[in-house]
Amino acid sequence: MIMLYDSPLSGNCHKVRMALGMLGLLCTLAPGDAAARATLAFGAINPLRQVPVLNDEGFVLRDSQAILAYLAAKHRFGDWDGDTPAERGEIGQWLSIAANEIANGPATLRLAKLFGVLINEANATAVTTRIMPVIEAHLSTRDWLVGGRTTVADLALSPYLALAPDGGIDLTAYPHIGAWVARIARLPGFVAMPGWSY
Amino acid sequence: MIMLYDSPLSGNCHKVRMALGMLGLLCTLAPGDAAARATLAFGAINPLRQVPVLNDEGFVLRDSQAILAYLAAKHRFGDWDGDTPAERGEIGQWLSIAANEIANGPATLRLAKLFGVLINEANATAVTTRIMPVIEAHLSTRDWLVGGRTTVADLALSPYLALAPDGGIDLTAYPHIGAWVARIARLPGFVAMPGWSY
Repeated sequence: MIMLYDSPLSGNCHKVRMALGMLGLLCTLAPGDAAARATLAFGAINPLRQVPVLNDEGFVLRDSQAILAYLAAKHRFGDWDGDTPAERGEIGQWLSIAANEIANGPATLRLAKLFGVLINEANATAVTTRIMPVIEAHLSTRDWLVGGRTTVADLALSPYLALAPDGGIDLTAYPHIGAWVARIARLPGFVAMPGWSY
Repeated sequence: MIMLYDSPLSGNCHKVRMALGMLGLLCTLAPGDAAARATLAFGAINPLRQVPVLNDEGFVLRDSQAILAYLAAKHRFGDWDGDTPAERGEIGQWLSIAANEIANGPATLRLAKLFGVLINEANATAVTTRIMPVIEAHLSTRDWLVGGRTTVADLALSPYLALAPDGGIDLTAYPHIGAWVARIARLPGFVAMPGWSY
């Protein structure tokens, strides 16, 4: 059985919950709130003290993008992670954006507004303002980020974009992003999350 | 022929130059300095106005990690990008760290010290201080980041770690990182870069 160190309001955890739901894989949840992450035991599992962490029958993996890559390679090889070098490259572009701009932009604004975390708001706003129009323009001519089907790129980017209003971002300014996160919410096995209102 | 939009002192470009060198692939270089990146033509190629950008016979790809994923899938499938789901997941962990912590830590400190770019130094220092010991500890028991051989994880992380002294980071405090970047510099096809003194 898969075990997921999870925090219910974490968009990073939600990427993995969605993937597991769509794959029809059962998992048990282990606590990943701030108190749990502060323990010595958790530091040995993930020195960065972040969730999600996946434990698949003893194989332990941290980082939401990495867990998506692992689950794709194991259960949807080629389909979810690209079946040509070009698709793998294009998916890689979006995984980098998920790890950097999404994390340091909309996800960080949400941390401040929803949880009162002290952030550099000017930087998070600048990153958000730079990246959202790029994603909006890309989705204006296609239903999915890469290859005309759902891939890990969609799973990696969608939670913090669907949850962007939590951080004070008005998604009506980005109608193609809004339509795309609504499309993801209609996929079989999609898992609901508070704040994902599309 | 491959064309690479390149900037000689960019560590991100160096990831691609190293990969092409190790693969024995010829490429022509196109200008990717600030003036070139400010043009309308470049904005159409990469709206983020960053290098590297690869053009492989008309297939255009931006983002250094994505380009490594593409080149690996095309030329070293399984070997460079992982031949099991577990390896693919572990490589994914490091690619996220390259895209986020390395870019926003040591690479950003170098931007300030070497090029006078205005940065949030407290944040870049905090990110650096958090991630370097994790990498140092990981490399204390192995020669390569994943799978006992060179993978795109090593290519993605090594330039900005080898160049960390440019940003004022004393690498003698991280002997295993130092030994590892020296190991990479001895690989067949390695391409030299100013500041990579190991």
